[in-house]
Amino acid sequence: MARGRFVSIEGGEGAGKSTQVRRLATTLAARGIEAIVTREPGGSEGAEAIRALLMQGAINRWSAHGETLLFAAARADHVEKVIQPALGIGRWVLCDRFIDSTRAYQGVAGGIDDAAILALHAFGSRGLLPDRTLVLDVPRAVGAARALARDGGAGDRFAVRGTVFHDDVAAAFRRFASAEPDRVRMIDAGRDVDTVTAALLAELADLLP
Amino acid sequence: MARGRFVSIEGGEGAGKSTQVRRLATTLAARGIEAIVTREPGGSEGAEAIRALLMQGAINRWSAHGETLLFAAARADHVEKVIQPALGIGRWVLCDRFIDSTRAYQGVAGGIDDAAILALHAFGSRGLLPDRTLVLDVPRAVGAARALARDGGAGDRFAVRGTVFHDDVAAAFRRFASAEPDRVRMIDAGRDVDTVTAALLAELADLLP
Repeated sequence: MARGRFVSIEGGEGAGKSTQVRRLATTLAARGIEAIVTREPGGSEGAEAIRALLMQGAINRWSAHGETLLFAAARADHVEKVIQPALGIGRWVLCDRFIDSTRAYQGVAGGIDDAAILALHAFGSRGLLPDRTLVLDVPRAVGAARALARDGGAGDRFAVRGTVFHDDVAAAFRRFASAEPDRVRMIDAGRDVDTVTAALLAELADLLP
Repeated sequence: MARGRFVSIEGGEGAGKSTQVRRLATTLAARGIEAIVTREPGGSEGAEAIRALLMQGAINRWSAHGETLLFAAARADHVEKVIQPALGIGRWVLCDRFIDSTRAYQGVAGGIDDAAILALHAFGSRGLLPDRTLVLDVPRAVGAARALARDGGAGDRFAVRGTVFHDDVAAAFRRFASAEPDRVRMIDAGRDVDTVTAALLAELADLLP
């Protein structure tokens, strides 16, 4: 049995990640590909408990270093308990955020060294990288408006950060796509949902059986 | 104002750490030295929330790597929010367990590489080491009996591990004392409590003002 493919969906707040990851799973299912949908931080029982510590509370609840360690701990549990077992039995894994979110949010926008983040990932998760990373790119104003409509302004510890922080996150994802063009693909997610789903699928064409 | 001194108290289950750390604080206070008493995992609000994840639940709740990352995250918060501020205003800090517990439990007994543990400590806590580490050493049978009398057999995720695990922990602390004789001191803690407290104080003589 062939090992499954691992696809992460990345992007800022309100880019449509959770909608598109579900639509992508449905589209793959119609082609006979069984995919599990999961998310970070969280995705396993232990990691969801860590997620609660990460997403709730005051904006300065954790130092940048402590926060980065918590993300690495959650990811280690998620990879070991959910992602690797699913890939091992031939399932595709569609993950709403993965290591590139840590590199963008805690790294580029938060000031933590990228090499240190990758070293933690090597320690906790054996450095597992997605086969493909799809970055949903929308103008910041569009994403912010969508997130506001969804959360009513009651965003989590990251959503409530300022414009400079979110601009840094968006720039980071573009930089990752430039640095690793085979793995990381930018998708214009300002279009209608069907068009975006089709664009995501097109970026997976070479991975399909 | 002189910076405070940082003293960690280490040892296996039932060695008398929490009793002796309190007695040591009282003894220091009688000499005009203000000391705060704290503990790991925990010791700060965030770290205590992580402690609950670490100490409760099934013995295999976390992988060794995930567990080590959680300890590092808790320690980063504890160092930043409690230990460094106290030392900075001249307080002594007496800490029930610190980095050497991670090196003994997750490292030697759990199989995680010591250099990797120290790298996580450098990342999260700037590699802060105690000025002195006092290891309370009791025969394993004595410690196990004391822990049983205290917990009634309802020990945490570490107390319930088997004899080989706890023998590895004890051997690890002895090895640390051999490797760093200036920082790490072994104390025979099978004696009466007053004698042990006096022995701890004697090992701090060169640090006293």
